[in-house]
Amino acid sequence: MSTPSRAPIYLDHAASTAMLPDAVEAMTAVFAQPGNASSLHGSGRWARRRLEEARESVAASVGARPSEVIFTGGGTESDNLALKGIYCARRRADARRRRVIVSAVEHHAILDPAIWLADADDAELVIAPVDEQGFVSPSWLRAELAEHANDTAVISVMWANNEVGTIQPITELAAIGAEFGVPVHSDAIQAVGHIPVDFGASGLSALSLAAHKFGGPQGVGALLLRRDVDCVPLLHGGGHERDVRSGTQDVAGAAGMAAALRWSIDHMDANLDAVTALREQLFAALLAVGGTTANGPRDARRLPGNVHVSFDGCEGDSLLMLLDANGVECSTGSACTAGVAQASHVLLAMGLDVPTARGSLRFSLAPTSTTADVEAVADVIGQIVDRARAAGLVSSPSGEVR
Amino acid sequence: MSTPSRAPIYLDHAASTAMLPDAVEAMTAVFAQPGNASSLHGSGRWARRRLEEARESVAASVGARPSEVIFTGGGTESDNLALKGIYCARRRADARRRRVIVSAVEHHAILDPAIWLADADDAELVIAPVDEQGFVSPSWLRAELAEHANDTAVISVMWANNEVGTIQPITELAAIGAEFGVPVHSDAIQAVGHIPVDFGASGLSALSLAAHKFGGPQGVGALLLRRDVDCVPLLHGGGHERDVRSGTQDVAGAAGMAAALRWSIDHMDANLDAVTALREQLFAALLAVGGTTANGPRDARRLPGNVHVSFDGCEGDSLLMLLDANGVECSTGSACTAGVAQASHVLLAMGLDVPTARGSLRFSLAPTSTTADVEAVADVIGQIVDRARAAGLVSSPSGEVR
Repeated sequence: MSTPSRAPIYLDHAASTAMLPDAVEAMTAVFAQPGNASSLHGSGRWARRRLEEARESVAASVGARPSEVIFTGGGTESDNLALKGIYCARRRADARRRRVIVSAVEHHAILDPAIWLADADDAELVIAPVDEQGFVSPSWLRAELAEHANDTAVISVMWANNEVGTIQPITELAAIGAEFGVPVHSDAIQAVGHIPVDFGASGLSALSLAAHKFGGPQGVGALLLRRDVDCVPLLHGGGHERDVRSGTQDVAGAAGMAAALRWSIDHMDANLDAVTALREQLFAALLAVGGTTANGPRDARRLPGNVHVSFDGCEGDSLLMLLDANGVECSTGSACTAGVAQASHVLLAMGLDVPTARGSLRFSLAPTSTTADVEAVADVIGQIVDRARAAGLVSSPSGEVR
Repeated sequence: MSTPSRAPIYLDHAASTAMLPDAVEAMTAVFAQPGNASSLHGSGRWARRRLEEARESVAASVGARPSEVIFTGGGTESDNLALKGIYCARRRADARRRRVIVSAVEHHAILDPAIWLADADDAELVIAPVDEQGFVSPSWLRAELAEHANDTAVISVMWANNEVGTIQPITELAAIGAEFGVPVHSDAIQAVGHIPVDFGASGLSALSLAAHKFGGPQGVGALLLRRDVDCVPLLHGGGHERDVRSGTQDVAGAAGMAAALRWSIDHMDANLDAVTALREQLFAALLAVGGTTANGPRDARRLPGNVHVSFDGCEGDSLLMLLDANGVECSTGSACTAGVAQASHVLLAMGLDVPTARGSLRFSLAPTSTTADVEAVADVIGQIVDRARAAGLVSSPSGEVR
């Protein structure tokens, strides 16, 4: 339990994974050359070519057309743009469309804009419930739209959950939206690069992705947006990106994202199998500790690299810190809400009680993860849980930290 | 007039300048390490340290406090966030505050959000006129606020103009805003890194900057925002950046921006003198051609690297293309509206007629620019202007291309 001298075992790839060499190389090639992709001269055209090559590559990697790829400054921007932009456009076209349907397990980058629309822009927020594994029910959505198709502006259901890895029946949900004429957006930020994602085949109207989740740079993302879906911009200005997202394009970032995604797609089959196998090894090691429960599905409907376990009688933050002190890096859930001493809304929506929700950890694996990483966790987890329990850092039934 | 074999002479640094070696080095150092600045473990804390060091460095470079630096995805986002966010917050506090005052020579990243607020959010758009050199008049602003202080939400006047280089009397304008209790924002995207900018001393409430204008990466910017200025976020989510700008922070981008800005500040005095001298050489070369006029001031109230000239009887686009074919890269104005066959709103606001406005070119210099670059322009500009004039690619008085 002493401070380790070796490099930490990084099992928090869902928060931000290491950049792939291909991505770094693609970016540094662009860094060497000045140029604004909107400039008309040779250097501008060179930058524009790099940008459009990146757009074509991203499109080909996720079954989209190049013209459907809108480059953004990251996943949160993509989510905000989709939800607010489509809501705003749909309401302009028909003022009755006030309903915004989002699942109960969305990331804050969807939940918070949805709440904002309800607070500030007269939206009616409708939360789609999930079952104990975190799945949204297609029949629930069908019943909802059967009654409210004409007053619904937009639906957003994530492709795969960032905390418990649940992969939604997204094609089925998109088909129901299409049947009732309501656009469906999906936050696929945890899915793209890790499991097959085909935008065209999905039937979705819009999809968010973020480069740093699959080996590209931070601060770079995209919104895939069908050409027939109106979306009011968040950022007004020079009219870049189909006039949906103004701002000088980040050519190096786009090239880095495209390269990382290309590598991820090219190696997906092998990575998917290997990472899934490691996932199950890590689950076995964690569940060997008494008083533990796995959260989310344990089959092909789970992200290959996601491991999520609740430890009875422990605070997740305490476990995280003890693991960190032992050279193992993981998360209590979304990094975006790290440090917030609140039970996860995802776990509560799945029916967990507050103390169990607060006693949970997420480990997320990458293709670079190894059996040795899993063994290192297995070596320390038992004594760490014992220590956390013995220290009395447990939750009272009300969820207050004692 | 044949296609040159050497590298082009890049005189479009105001559109996007080459990355500085310090910036590339700072970014690649971060690229080598995974980590989300919101994660609680060691790698997360490492990323957070890099981010906060970048914040402190940016703050020190522009006379701001670290807590006043909000990292964004670029200048357009900073401008949109400031204008919409402050407008929205001020209206919430007092519904009478409908007026949005922006100068007639703002970049589209301010003009377009202002128009959007008027179209979609009940704002009253007030355009501050400029004189023939592009200056906003402090006495105009004082008279305007004397009448409308209580109904004004926000004022935005750029620090220095992107087309003609005019440096506004920004401290004076900010003081007038402060006197009447109205927040003043400044788009300082062309100023930061090139001329001294001190946020604290300026008296401004908010200021936008963009890394790729001073040797940092594209897709990275900041909004400097005083702690006592309320600003409603554009991007909702995890509550990053003082809850004003959610989204996983781009640690490498922030580090690259900080390094480029540091270098620019450290070398500013020498660069300012050298670039200003080159500017005047280039002006002399261009004005030696008959039928030419310099636009904007020609003294210390002009950006050191900005050269802007109108050529009678020519289309700027034609000149640009002919120069490009001769290995000289420049712009007709803002890269963000490149390709749009419209006379510049900046030049029209300064009183130029449409044909003159359309017959204009901007050359923008960097510390890496040389006398040889200026001489290369001098060698070809005369014959290129002759050719453009002879080709009859001139504007009719209505501004239509013949």
